[in-house]
Amino acid sequence: MQFYRYKIVVEYNGTNYYGSQIQQKPALPTINQAMVIALNKLTNHNLLDLAVSGRTDAGVHALGQVFHFDTTKFLQNHQIVLGLNHYLQAEDIRVISAYLVDENFHARFSAKKRTYQYLIQNRQAPSPLLKNLAWHIAKPLDILAMKEASKFLLGCHDFSAFRDSECQAKSPIRSLDMIDFIWQNSAYNLENNGLLADSLKINVVAKSFLHHMVRNIVGTLVYVGLGKFKPADVLEILQSKNRSKAGPTAPACGLYFLSVDF
Amino acid sequence: MQFYRYKIVVEYNGTNYYGSQIQQKPALPTINQAMVIALNKLTNHNLLDLAVSGRTDAGVHALGQVFHFDTTKFLQNHQIVLGLNHYLQAEDIRVISAYLVDENFHARFSAKKRTYQYLIQNRQAPSPLLKNLAWHIAKPLDILAMKEASKFLLGCHDFSAFRDSECQAKSPIRSLDMIDFIWQNSAYNLENNGLLADSLKINVVAKSFLHHMVRNIVGTLVYVGLGKFKPADVLEILQSKNRSKAGPTAPACGLYFLSVDF
Repeated sequence: MQFYRYKIVVEYNGTNYYGSQIQQKPALPTINQAMVIALNKLTNHNLLDLAVSGRTDAGVHALGQVFHFDTTKFLQNHQIVLGLNHYLQAEDIRVISAYLVDENFHARFSAKKRTYQYLIQNRQAPSPLLKNLAWHIAKPLDILAMKEASKFLLGCHDFSAFRDSECQAKSPIRSLDMIDFIWQNSAYNLENNGLLADSLKINVVAKSFLHHMVRNIVGTLVYVGLGKFKPADVLEILQSKNRSKAGPTAPACGLYFLSVDF
Repeated sequence: MQFYRYKIVVEYNGTNYYGSQIQQKPALPTINQAMVIALNKLTNHNLLDLAVSGRTDAGVHALGQVFHFDTTKFLQNHQIVLGLNHYLQAEDIRVISAYLVDENFHARFSAKKRTYQYLIQNRQAPSPLLKNLAWHIAKPLDILAMKEASKFLLGCHDFSAFRDSECQAKSPIRSLDMIDFIWQNSAYNLENNGLLADSLKINVVAKSFLHHMVRNIVGTLVYVGLGKFKPADVLEILQSKNRSKAGPTAPACGLYFLSVDF
């Protein structure tokens, strides 16, 4: 059967969704469910397949999530963007761009690198402008210690210590390409003796991740930042392959699926 | 009477407030009203006075609004931050910092420069992460033309053309110190041929402003960016002193009261 495959880049606020995957209880709204409904409207129910680059949990956001979908209907790229955004109007999901791709492209299996970004707000008062959009930590974080600790995680390792007990991946081996720290003081926070970097972004890059891996890494690095772990403890935690040795799972609201390299 | 004066720096999401000033209809929640209620709790009803640096309209946000308040009760700075944020828990308002100041300091009259920031999202689809937090403009803006046009507004002028009909200021003369443009493409938007700078921030600095002046300037510059006005038209509009010649009032949701210099 003749069909067309389209790649679409999608942004969403995950606050009001139970993650990306369609749930068994159909009452729970998910990103994929909303996409399937909109795509069926767009294609007059000629949607053959839909795949996503990176699954996201309940409350996790995306700035550059990638899907592909197959349809027997030929569509112009701009028709897809405008049409889907029209059908998604009541949702917290928007399509940024759309491209016709060949059938060898696969949103999940062709992905070479995925980048997640974790946003921490590190100052005494939580921001009313970042409600549900960041992890608020009131105590000052030692970012240099967090950077030092992060280096033990780079490269190819057994990440069992940072893996959710419900993770269904066959192997716990993953290869972490990069953990990058970007922080800044807002002008009004400099008055506060410049003690806190009030916004800290942690970019984590890998071909693929275990379930909750980014959030477990961030929770562990935050324990380093708070002085509960020393940087070298992170090497021991990694080598222990024991989830109970690592820090807590960082909250979903601070996590963003940023981009995919194909 | 012996009293203490405190300066506080405040952040708020203005979406659910009818501006900063206490309204005659007390049913409408305002920033100042919420502050007065919290300050009365903090001071056991020994609040003598409250003043704000810059009034904000309904839906306008603040990252670094400044208030001062007088009270007969002596308080530690951190007591003020923690106490007020406790009483403001149900509000979209947070106190960032507090300082004991001498009685010559006045949040409104001691202000030497006020900075407003206007956030425009310039891409086809509005961001679900910036709902109520930016002005979404789908058509590409010519930012260089906007920059060129902005130069006609710098310095001391009669800003009647950019003044709301309800403005109560005695004089329409104001001195604009700076209009600064900061723009960037998100990673995922670069794929989109880099045609749109998907985030544009316009910082406007002056000692003081007329009512709606920043939003009327931004609305006019956006008309330049869309090609509806030429940059040189802005000089004519300014010289006309006629509000009906200028562009529309930019929506409140994109405006942030950023900071005050004393």
